[in-house]
Amino acid sequence: MKPFIEKARLEEIIKEIPTPFHIYDERGIRENFRKFKQAFSWNKGFKEYFAVKATPNPSIMRILLEEGAGFDCASYTELLMANDVLKSFAFDGSPGEKLSPTVSTKSASGGSPGEKLSPTVSTKSASGGSPLMFSSNVTPDEDFLLAAQIGAIINLDDFTHIEVLDRLCGIPETISCRYNPGGEFKTDESGNVMDIPKDAKYGFTHEQLIEGYRVLKAKGAKKFGVHSFLASNTLTNDYYPALAKIMFKLAVELKEKTGISLSFINLSGGVGVAYRPEQKPNDIKLIGEGVKAVFEEILVPAGMGDVSIFTELGRFITAPYGALVATALREKHIYKEYIGLDACAANLMRPAIYGAYHHISVMGKENEPHDYKYDITGGLCENNDKFAIDRMLPKIELGDIIYIHDTGAHGFSMGYNYNGKLRSAEVLLCEDGSHKLIRRAETPDDYFATLRY
Amino acid sequence: MKPFIEKARLEEIIKEIPTPFHIYDERGIRENFRKFKQAFSWNKGFKEYFAVKATPNPSIMRILLEEGAGFDCASYTELLMANDVLKSFAFDGSPGEKLSPTVSTKSASGGSPGEKLSPTVSTKSASGGSPLMFSSNVTPDEDFLLAAQIGAIINLDDFTHIEVLDRLCGIPETISCRYNPGGEFKTDESGNVMDIPKDAKYGFTHEQLIEGYRVLKAKGAKKFGVHSFLASNTLTNDYYPALAKIMFKLAVELKEKTGISLSFINLSGGVGVAYRPEQKPNDIKLIGEGVKAVFEEILVPAGMGDVSIFTELGRFITAPYGALVATALREKHIYKEYIGLDACAANLMRPAIYGAYHHISVMGKENEPHDYKYDITGGLCENNDKFAIDRMLPKIELGDIIYIHDTGAHGFSMGYNYNGKLRSAEVLLCEDGSHKLIRRAETPDDYFATLRY
Repeated sequence: MKPFIEKARLEEIIKEIPTPFHIYDERGIRENFRKFKQAFSWNKGFKEYFAVKATPNPSIMRILLEEGAGFDCASYTELLMANDVLKSFAFDGSPGEKLSPTVSTKSASGGSPGEKLSPTVSTKSASGGSPLMFSSNVTPDEDFLLAAQIGAIINLDDFTHIEVLDRLCGIPETISCRYNPGGEFKTDESGNVMDIPKDAKYGFTHEQLIEGYRVLKAKGAKKFGVHSFLASNTLTNDYYPALAKIMFKLAVELKEKTGISLSFINLSGGVGVAYRPEQKPNDIKLIGEGVKAVFEEILVPAGMGDVSIFTELGRFITAPYGALVATALREKHIYKEYIGLDACAANLMRPAIYGAYHHISVMGKENEPHDYKYDITGGLCENNDKFAIDRMLPKIELGDIIYIHDTGAHGFSMGYNYNGKLRSAEVLLCEDGSHKLIRRAETPDDYFATLRY
Repeated sequence: MKPFIEKARLEEIIKEIPTPFHIYDERGIRENFRKFKQAFSWNKGFKEYFAVKATPNPSIMRILLEEGAGFDCASYTELLMANDVLKSFAFDGSPGEKLSPTVSTKSASGGSPGEKLSPTVSTKSASGGSPLMFSSNVTPDEDFLLAAQIGAIINLDDFTHIEVLDRLCGIPETISCRYNPGGEFKTDESGNVMDIPKDAKYGFTHEQLIEGYRVLKAKGAKKFGVHSFLASNTLTNDYYPALAKIMFKLAVELKEKTGISLSFINLSGGVGVAYRPEQKPNDIKLIGEGVKAVFEEILVPAGMGDVSIFTELGRFITAPYGALVATALREKHIYKEYIGLDACAANLMRPAIYGAYHHISVMGKENEPHDYKYDITGGLCENNDKFAIDRMLPKIELGDIIYIHDTGAHGFSMGYNYNGKLRSAEVLLCEDGSHKLIRRAETPDDYFATLRY
């Protein structure tokens, strides 16, 4: 696994923006996204709604929007952010995407305190759907209202939400429901249990789904979609096809039982990345072909060949194209050998809370023998604040630049302020080789901002 | 386990401050602190340095300061916050504490961006020590500098930090070192392994400690302390005495080998609370007596009966006197029964990341039969965002006030913004029964504050 930036270039950036920071590779994101889109180009209405929670930064979102992505939002603030990105895109008239912005001047209803909602642009994508998907759970009223107001497709998590939404603002013309098949989920080939949907808090049961679409239709909905998420960060090309098979069969059944022909089927997230060098990355071309085969096997013969496939990937789109850049700050020689960084779990929480593996490169020493065993730590007063345990690395000198791979998703976004630590900056390595500060580091003033004393 | 506030009073507060919020019980904190201080009153120089990381809110810290606590800080921002609390206390001339504020007008050296350091008050506590302890690890230069500038006692985490500190600003007169004995840690009585210090990233080895004090003395240090933390959230009255025995023996050995007589021994944190109703809480009186017995057994005969005992408890001081107050927002009936709250892991992360138990009361229904089994969830798109799994509770109606116990430490402070969720307000229930907003809820503007777009 190689860093996407050279040491000399990184040193230039560090002169201007001190470590730690997350850096993102625009070129990598664009190339990956194009391959991904290509893999599903057989489906006319295909659209990826980027999971904003993975990398909630407008500059990254703008890149994905330019490549044709929409946004999957999970909360009020994510809806606001995504809507702002859409507006800026529409207003500065960027070419290359068929968006038809229409300014809506509806005021915010039911807004929460502190909110400053500007006039909203409703942008329709080429496929005729909305560029915004709202997939949430335990959804507050104001989130539903905002989603409806800015024209996001609402993906209902629960049967009881039908009534909530109807009471709040009526059922929109286009609506989606999240399906939870219960039981255990296995892919066809391995037979391994990938996850246990019956223990997941999400979605409608099968029975609720059938009834749900009937109710939604009776309340005036015209276009319907279904969504399901059955496993996280999978590393098998079989996951999407296996999920698609369940959903496509469901679509046929729904048509038979309710007369409703689904407009879109949302395979959601779950296609993962290889964090470890020994893991085999997913082959998105094969995954696309796998879904196509199931599509042709099940949907086409049922006369449903015009159904659009939607996805809500986050990790797969951006994780490998981000890195946490830190400096080796302190060394420690006790019962183990430690290198302490100027970054900590406040900047990247996955190793601390999941024991997740993130590959580490010592910049400029990639080809030296990896014959030193280190724990690489942050400075939280938490012993789990370790980016790596017993990791074989080249000999590290203080001041070395430590590059922690694959932080482009669920990295910065899971950051916190425990121990009063401040969250870092985010930097974009632009396609032309220049760089841009796309989020400044927090200051003590940010940390103190909400105090009343 | 009973809420510390009545339903009717909580409803009044909620009219003004919408849920979710953390609420803290001033009376409970003060009474607990007094019992705690009493338990160690046999030691003339005893001082508790409240672990700011547990509840980093100046209003809570002020209460503890009034009761005679100092502050244990782990980072730059915690030092700033603690120093601000000390200043405000000194300047408004509150009675009851023998502090002698002296304004220092030294400017900040090596400060980080965004910092606005005001003139510093150095306050000396009755025991002659500083009211600030700085116990950190992988410590950045600017943190050491700030700690030195505001007169915090620096508790060095590592042997190599001696040289760092000396280079930065010289070794202060009073200095402490953190000890890591390695191996496994067992209490005397149970023989159970409580933790594995050899795998912990903290502290000096025994050999480094002996050498460390020699070096520090040679560099001009005059007063010495030692610190050790060997287990977290313990529920045995034996932990502190067992730890004390190790440290007191060490103190005697140090005196013999280096001629250095320690001024203070810092038992640090680790005394926990009973989160589950079936657990027996620690008896702080017995713990104090246990430490006293070891003190009289080891230190007094060695002519070291004037050593001060310091502690750095956080959880024990405040955890039971805080609660997360939420509203039952959505229900869900699928393969399990769910109640969704307007709070989520962004407000309290312990159940999601540690599977930690927090007791839950449904306000006003404490005495009803607990014959419904629920998963109590937040709205994060993370299936681990559950405050409780398969919890027996009274039947919950939407709108019920849900009181999550024991969030007074490591509750708000571990909050994050994942999924764009906003962190909540904090409210103080004052001793006189009134209440005070001591931290406002975040707004979308706070969430967007650092973006450059």
